[in-house]
Amino acid sequence: MAEQGKQGRVVFGPDYVRAISPYIAGKPISEVAREFGLDEAGIVKLASNENPLGMPASAQRAVADAVAELGRYPDSNGFALKAALSARFGVPEDWLTLGNGSNDILELAAHALVEPGQSIVYAEYSFAVYALATQEIGARAIEVSARDYGHDLDAMAAAIAPDTRLVFIANPNNPTGTFVPAAQIEAFLQRVPAHVVVVLDEAYNEYLDADQQYDSLAWVRRYPNLLVSRTFSKAYGLAGLRVGYAVAQPELTDLLNRVRQPFNVNSVAQAAAVAALGDSEFLRRSAELNRAGKAQLTEAFDRLGLEYVPSSGNFVLVRVGDDDGAGARVNVALLKQGVIVRPVGNYKLPRWLRVTIGLSEENAAFIAALERALA
Amino acid sequence: MAEQGKQGRVVFGPDYVRAISPYIAGKPISEVAREFGLDEAGIVKLASNENPLGMPASAQRAVADAVAELGRYPDSNGFALKAALSARFGVPEDWLTLGNGSNDILELAAHALVEPGQSIVYAEYSFAVYALATQEIGARAIEVSARDYGHDLDAMAAAIAPDTRLVFIANPNNPTGTFVPAAQIEAFLQRVPAHVVVVLDEAYNEYLDADQQYDSLAWVRRYPNLLVSRTFSKAYGLAGLRVGYAVAQPELTDLLNRVRQPFNVNSVAQAAAVAALGDSEFLRRSAELNRAGKAQLTEAFDRLGLEYVPSSGNFVLVRVGDDDGAGARVNVALLKQGVIVRPVGNYKLPRWLRVTIGLSEENAAFIAALERALA
Repeated sequence: MAEQGKQGRVVFGPDYVRAISPYIAGKPISEVAREFGLDEAGIVKLASNENPLGMPASAQRAVADAVAELGRYPDSNGFALKAALSARFGVPEDWLTLGNGSNDILELAAHALVEPGQSIVYAEYSFAVYALATQEIGARAIEVSARDYGHDLDAMAAAIAPDTRLVFIANPNNPTGTFVPAAQIEAFLQRVPAHVVVVLDEAYNEYLDADQQYDSLAWVRRYPNLLVSRTFSKAYGLAGLRVGYAVAQPELTDLLNRVRQPFNVNSVAQAAAVAALGDSEFLRRSAELNRAGKAQLTEAFDRLGLEYVPSSGNFVLVRVGDDDGAGARVNVALLKQGVIVRPVGNYKLPRWLRVTIGLSEENAAFIAALERALA
Repeated sequence: MAEQGKQGRVVFGPDYVRAISPYIAGKPISEVAREFGLDEAGIVKLASNENPLGMPASAQRAVADAVAELGRYPDSNGFALKAALSARFGVPEDWLTLGNGSNDILELAAHALVEPGQSIVYAEYSFAVYALATQEIGARAIEVSARDYGHDLDAMAAAIAPDTRLVFIANPNNPTGTFVPAAQIEAFLQRVPAHVVVVLDEAYNEYLDADQQYDSLAWVRRYPNLLVSRTFSKAYGLAGLRVGYAVAQPELTDLLNRVRQPFNVNSVAQAAAVAALGDSEFLRRSAELNRAGKAQLTEAFDRLGLEYVPSSGNFVLVRVGDDDGAGARVNVALLKQGVIVRPVGNYKLPRWLRVTIGLSEENAAFIAALERALA
């Protein structure tokens, strides 16, 4: 609440807002170039789990076609993109919510479903936005200890309190890359009380190996309290445009729509997402490149004797030292060589770095820089 | 709160979220074409206060240049756009917040500054998002009766309650087009308690006549509780891209940043806004076209004996009948002729329509259709 501070100064905003530590984004290439006096062209950025292939050419053409109409507001209801998603995944259009990235979906769920003082359950070492969304609305966080750096769904089910209204599950999880097999998630859904909504965050779903894949949309049909969240920012290569989507039954979808900003998804993003959704060849290439790059990184980590968490995403979490200064120290040593990765001290993983899987030559540049940094 | 409904069904979400009536956007051209079986090319849309010149060519070039990098996340801190805004308006960069349209800014202010149960003051007939932002956070709305369809700042100052944390002022106001002279706003700022934040929404600021213009950023320097909100969606012609900004002293700016989604403004919008901001010729042409179009519309209304509210924006509110069915009836008659304007029954103005000022030929098409609709 606004109040007089110690020196009689006015203090704005609720305590729970003033307590928030804002999200720390991966450093943009331009910022690293400025800070370290480097040439932008020589910098390798493996910090934000972006698709190293960039945006598909099909989506680039869609952007060019959309330019003539950008003086107009976007379609508030996302008619064309919802139609494309509906056709692609076989879900009705009124089961779909579009978001300004899936970050928007995660926050809409918190805003639409949880009152201040009620609780939200999520796992230790899971995506930072779960904690931020909880703090933003003055809700109580129930953070459940990880098991082997991943979600312990038994412990999460047991942690649900009478005032819990939302559970966040990331599968695969960011920043650790861990994966929960389908059978465990379904057992969890059966256990969760009907009034508690489960947000299953599948931002990295398109990178799963064939034997990991599962049909979460069949669960959405079965569980009115399940919301599946996905994004075009990773495998689809549209991070710069901001578009994600949620699939849930109409009652939940309707609630998200009530707190959604009417023009939350811009016109370019809508057009590019329609194109990218139809570009199965790009998706296939992206997954293949990711598989090869993951092997390239993990082989190097094995060779260097570095522990890493087996990853089902487009990144690998690797331990770069035995002391709590290791992550920050090695990160700076990499930055000086023009390689941007992600330190994860804010996730209470100060000995680790998260490395996005890049193009083969980007991975090689990172490995060489890492060897020098550790020498 | 989640509870058992009448039939024992589970009900999700807080009462205050379930009570929200979502924003009603202007109908997209494609939707009207589908609904009324019309050719898209023949439809005139004067419904959403967009710039009839579309996006400036300078911004179109900036979009094309940005395409190569859209696989990357946007710059979370908006370095280039903040630098451009800082240079253009002479405010430090840490006084700036970028939003996904100024809609985002308005919601960030509510989320960052007001707890559920506290109150927000705004005027009758003012922008619909003020009410939505209030409802979304479970705050209490204090809606102050309008005077001559505009803000009654004396009454608004008097309406501030002990638990009021935020006041929204739109200048010019949408959907009525009314303008509050600078001296009245400054008198209001002097009267408002220091712990109550005033959001001065200047979405239509660039359309003001020379004798109406005022220096609100000088007030920002003077009042730590003032936040000025602006947009690139109107005079700058970037509605489809979503970008707005706030100017406030660092303490307020810091709070907004805590609840801001890290990548709320997409890369294309940031690049296009930098270009549009430097395109003073486009802004001049837009204001000039608006002045001429406003005269064209109001002369027609005078000729037809229709009451209208003198407007300082890029739209005119006109009364199309004496009964509460008039607005909806005339709106449908216009839609059938392929002319989209905005009914404002949701603003408790069921006898009125809001017409965006278009190109000369669009205004003429609207006037001709209106005459037929009223005949």
